[in-house]
Amino acid sequence: MQKIPVVIVGANGYSGEELVRLLLRHPGVELRAVTSRSEAGKALTEVMPRFRGWPGADGIRFIGSEAAGIAATGAQVAFLALPHGLAAEFAGPLLAAGLRVVDLSADFRLRDAAVYEEFYGHAHPAPELLGEAVYGMPELHRARIGQARLVASPGCYPTSIILPLVPLLRRGLVDPESLIANSLSGTSGAGRKADVSLLFAECNESVQAYGVPKHRHLSEIEQELGAAAGRPLCLSFTPHLLPVTRGILTTLYATPAAGVDFSQIGEALRTDWGAEPFVRLLGERGALPRLADVVGTNFLDLAWRFDPRTRRVLLFSAEDNLVKGAAGQAVQAFNLLTGQTETTGLL
Amino acid sequence: MQKIPVVIVGANGYSGEELVRLLLRHPGVELRAVTSRSEAGKALTEVMPRFRGWPGADGIRFIGSEAAGIAATGAQVAFLALPHGLAAEFAGPLLAAGLRVVDLSADFRLRDAAVYEEFYGHAHPAPELLGEAVYGMPELHRARIGQARLVASPGCYPTSIILPLVPLLRRGLVDPESLIANSLSGTSGAGRKADVSLLFAECNESVQAYGVPKHRHLSEIEQELGAAAGRPLCLSFTPHLLPVTRGILTTLYATPAAGVDFSQIGEALRTDWGAEPFVRLLGERGALPRLADVVGTNFLDLAWRFDPRTRRVLLFSAEDNLVKGAAGQAVQAFNLLTGQTETTGLL
Amino acid sequence: MQKIPVVIVGANGYSGEELVRLLLRHPGVELRAVTSRSEAGKALTEVMPRFRGWPGADGIRFIGSEAAGIAATGAQVAFLALPHGLAAEFAGPLLAAGLRVVDLSADFRLRDAAVYEEFYGHAHPAPELLGEAVYGMPELHRARIGQARLVASPGCYPTSIILPLVPLLRRGLVDPESLIANSLSGTSGAGRKADVSLLFAECNESVQAYGVPKHRHLSEIEQELGAAAGRPLCLSFTPHLLPVTRGILTTLYATPAAGVDFSQIGEALRTDWGAEPFVRLLGERGALPRLADVVGTNFLDLAWRFDPRTRRVLLFSAEDNLVKGAAGQAVQAFNLLTGQTETTGLL
Amino acid sequence: MQKIPVVIVGANGYSGEELVRLLLRHPGVELRAVTSRSEAGKALTEVMPRFRGWPGADGIRFIGSEAAGIAATGAQVAFLALPHGLAAEFAGPLLAAGLRVVDLSADFRLRDAAVYEEFYGHAHPAPELLGEAVYGMPELHRARIGQARLVASPGCYPTSIILPLVPLLRRGLVDPESLIANSLSGTSGAGRKADVSLLFAECNESVQAYGVPKHRHLSEIEQELGAAAGRPLCLSFTPHLLPVTRGILTTLYATPAAGVDFSQIGEALRTDWGAEPFVRLLGERGALPRLADVVGTNFLDLAWRFDPRTRRVLLFSAEDNLVKGAAGQAVQAFNLLTGQTETTGLL
Repeated sequence: MQKIPVVIVGANGYSGEELVRLLLRHPGVELRAVTSRSEAGKALTEVMPRFRGWPGADGIRFIGSEAAGIAATGAQVAFLALPHGLAAEFAGPLLAAGLRVVDLSADFRLRDAAVYEEFYGHAHPAPELLGEAVYGMPELHRARIGQARLVASPGCYPTSIILPLVPLLRRGLVDPESLIANSLSGTSGAGRKADVSLLFAECNESVQAYGVPKHRHLSEIEQELGAAAGRPLCLSFTPHLLPVTRGILTTLYATPAAGVDFSQIGEALRTDWGAEPFVRLLGERGALPRLADVVGTNFLDLAWRFDPRTRRVLLFSAEDNLVKGAAGQAVQAFNLLTGQTETTGLL
Repeated sequence: MQKIPVVIVGANGYSGEELVRLLLRHPGVELRAVTSRSEAGKALTEVMPRFRGWPGADGIRFIGSEAAGIAATGAQVAFLALPHGLAAEFAGPLLAAGLRVVDLSADFRLRDAAVYEEFYGHAHPAPELLGEAVYGMPELHRARIGQARLVASPGCYPTSIILPLVPLLRRGLVDPESLIANSLSGTSGAGRKADVSLLFAECNESVQAYGVPKHRHLSEIEQELGAAAGRPLCLSFTPHLLPVTRGILTTLYATPAAGVDFSQIGEALRTDWGAEPFVRLLGERGALPRLADVVGTNFLDLAWRFDPRTRRVLLFSAEDNLVKGAAGQAVQAFNLLTGQTETTGLL
Repeated sequence: MQKIPVVIVGANGYSGEELVRLLLRHPGVELRAVTSRSEAGKALTEVMPRFRGWPGADGIRFIGSEAAGIAATGAQVAFLALPHGLAAEFAGPLLAAGLRVVDLSADFRLRDAAVYEEFYGHAHPAPELLGEAVYGMPELHRARIGQARLVASPGCYPTSIILPLVPLLRRGLVDPESLIANSLSGTSGAGRKADVSLLFAECNESVQAYGVPKHRHLSEIEQELGAAAGRPLCLSFTPHLLPVTRGILTTLYATPAAGVDFSQIGEALRTDWGAEPFVRLLGERGALPRLADVVGTNFLDLAWRFDPRTRRVLLFSAEDNLVKGAAGQAVQAFNLLTGQTETTGLL
Repeated sequence: MQKIPVVIVGANGYSGEELVRLLLRHPGVELRAVTSRSEAGKALTEVMPRFRGWPGADGIRFIGSEAAGIAATGAQVAFLALPHGLAAEFAGPLLAAGLRVVDLSADFRLRDAAVYEEFYGHAHPAPELLGEAVYGMPELHRARIGQARLVASPGCYPTSIILPLVPLLRRGLVDPESLIANSLSGTSGAGRKADVSLLFAECNESVQAYGVPKHRHLSEIEQELGAAAGRPLCLSFTPHLLPVTRGILTTLYATPAAGVDFSQIGEALRTDWGAEPFVRLLGERGALPRLADVVGTNFLDLAWRFDPRTRRVLLFSAEDNLVKGAAGQAVQAFNLLTGQTETTGLL
């Protein structure tokens, strides 16, 4: 298999490290370099000792993050694993240098710069690129991702919410005003940053909600759900910090539209996602999704139930926030972008 | 202080062990014995080595669970920390022997034997006692608990749901059809039983929902909430198993009734619970409840938020499932029952 | 690549499940069936939902554990992931049926049936096979494993102790009477069994030593270390149960023999293991091994230090108890046995 | 009971917070104020919401850390819960202002300023106070603590090592050259500091050794053990970072002196510690110490075993690093210092 040369920009966070893991094992990729301002000059395995002895890891070095240097590696694709706001500064120069870009930050996920400003609190740093950026969820935008120069890989929470609800909203099966998403995330979702609130002794044996009622991720969730529903919508979204390293479990509540039979819910999910390689439908009976079954994989597990007493539908999704919720989904988009089999390096 | 002689029936589960911890430190209690069929004859500290060296622990022994033997200890009050279904068999004989009973199981929490049968799947074993049993939540039934012979101490999940919602339902501030309770519980809530699904290697680094859509605890939740609302109601309740030992965090969703201003929510909570010693109101701003702040204590922490986008009210409660959710609340009722200061041994 | 048909006997414990994970991804293996008395007849993915959607997993079923049925699958190699004592009953019939056997239990690790009886408390169930069984540690017995019909894959603790010490004992660099191994293991090492002491609420936020002073694993540790030293030896070995799911960290203490310079320790380790694909030498400076770097991999990380104050050498090793300590090492032996590249399916 | 007014200097680390917990519940203490440069002016319960609703907590405020301000509160005793090096600057002025001082840092634990400089890398900041400081381990220095103006409360690791070994060294029962201490500590021992290596996602599901071979705590361990042995000695001490919040488990190895019978070990421990309220002797048989039994208490649990194969004695100790290893032991010394019953507020 011909290997495509790539670079990871900002590799020393948790998503960046997970990209290293996936790309080192990807048979269609040659990882040319990783970048980090603070680690430039060091070997990859010095900064991330877990990759010592991995095939292909020994020759890789950290370089600086300038577009010219990145282009000089011969990379055809750059993955951006940078903090929100910073990624937008790198995308333009890299595109100009002829690379294609898969951005894992939130910077290009919204089509509307005004919504970005409302949720992120400052003007968008590169609004001219919003038009061509494609929201990188293959289950929704497979064809467009294949043609894109710039892919905005979805957020971790949004992935766990959008995939269960889109089939229902597309068909008008649930009331768009009734949606509630209660999400639990491992602490790696908060990033590798020196913050007292993320210390082991603070998070362990505890759990709490945060970021309510208007978490930034709502903007992309509502954009994609609204597109499916054919009308704008608002939902309740409550993220919680969980004492696990990886994984998101989302419990969703929705009220069926008038006249809808519960069996239509399952039909919609099976019709839309039944052939998807990374959505596993557990159905309306049997086991409910659990983190342990998805951690380390690119799968999203999905089950649903009807509660005849309250007439609500419940949906449950589980994913690894760093894989299907970040690096894995980005590789999935990369595979589409470069004409490879979509599952390459991910199963 | 005069010490009241008590016995714990079924002391080797997690709630029973927590009762031992609280009662050994209670200045108004003399723990005469603990019972367990399997451990009868052993010293308390042999079965529970953590209590070696605690004042009062050394002389306590496990005895059998027969009512006559329990009465022979001279105990005036018996705490029942037995599995559901079994407690009902013990309560009658102990009451007949002149003891008062604080039962931590679900057996006497429901006023209606038919509801018990619907949710627990078999006829109630002692329906003749349901009439006099008092639901042991002091914040709701303080005066009646003080006069009771038989107290049915509330469930752990119900406590975390009833206390936030009752003030709102009493005043008609929220739509009774809109209620959703999303609860997360530590694994001690499932009891000390040899079950593969509760192994460390199964629960650790994972989380999952269970018992949906009709968990048994719904029966007592709906009984008490319905009483507050003045009409029957149904709610969605989704428990999740969390990788912590202790603690419950519940996130509640409700839609305000027409014309209700959000400030009325806080007023209702402050009016009803502002003087309660074990309900800590964190308010509509500032920190949200977290397990780490309540574990090991009898406090329930409570905060609330309004989401103007969805027009929903969110409430967040945290408690230790073994203390305010079980043994601590039972001791609180015991204090009322025996004429002691309600907070004795709990602060 | 030609795929070798294999069966896993006793697949529903933690080692068996890890074998499934590794063998499904192994390009030179066709997993024909898995066996379990209790699950016979079910699909693999019904019992282990985490493998839904994995290539090759969907057609695999649980069958009974009789040798004839296993042979009828056409398997050429059987992996035994059975409890100690039970494996010995299966090995003979499977060998007689023409399969080669990689046994993950302790049953064939000792060359001397009397030592087995001393440490395991009963007579060896198949002593006639001990002569041909090869201790399946490729770093020690690579050539013999390649020719073996019956491989006794090493224990998890022994692997973490033998690999650091053998190079030193071979050269007489340390006093054989001075050895102390202090080991910490995740709870998966205790197996998937319904035992109260392994519950999450018991293991979490705790740690304790167990099995001292004569843990069964000492027998194989001393066999292999004695062979390296050229004389019988005894060591102190203290296992501890750690609140993690996977991984072993061993801290070793040894006194250098008279006249030995510390640099000789590093030379010996580098000479013997420097070219080993799964032993990563972290050296006498820099980072010490940690579980997080090896979990999920077949690597054993190894570092060493000299303490001039006490004149002791310290060695530190880390491995995943289910991979290098069990299923991964078994696959490594399988690769040798079947003439494949030793690292196939493991990097 | 007459209440003694006290102040906690540096209350927002983990040891300081634990002091708050213990002192609020202490019947012979009135906590006048807590100090912190960064939190001065705030209410205690604003910074540490877990203390809302605790009796006595509501009126307490954070003040600045100047000696004059502390003296102005009328406090008779100051607890210093400051980083090493900083405490020494506060002790002198507070003593000069007439307070007695219980210091939880390492600053006054060593009698010899040269040893301090060797292990801490800089000259001692207040060597003139070393002469009068008393090492605050009641089991060793009870009488002197009662008379002290300045108590140097022992380190967490040292407590877990000194208490098991002193009775053996006093009597010459073990070879002083043979001692090895392998210790495991929860992450709270590293303090509440914003350090990436202490993040939940770094510590969780991992474990590693650190600080070898010459951890700073060796200096006080060897001082106290040498005093017991009547001669200087060196030992091996290997601390490990454990994925729990609280607790230290130490496993000790020693070789009995010639002619010593194992029963003498138990006799020595029972003679010296049998009447100690906070040392629980589990003996040479039965259960081994585990963190879960001591966390939250001031107990140190201690068991011992003889290994006839290697002729080594093993000792196992468990404690809560923040209680017996820090704040609890400091309160124990405070009780002695102020003429109260030693166990007040600690059982």
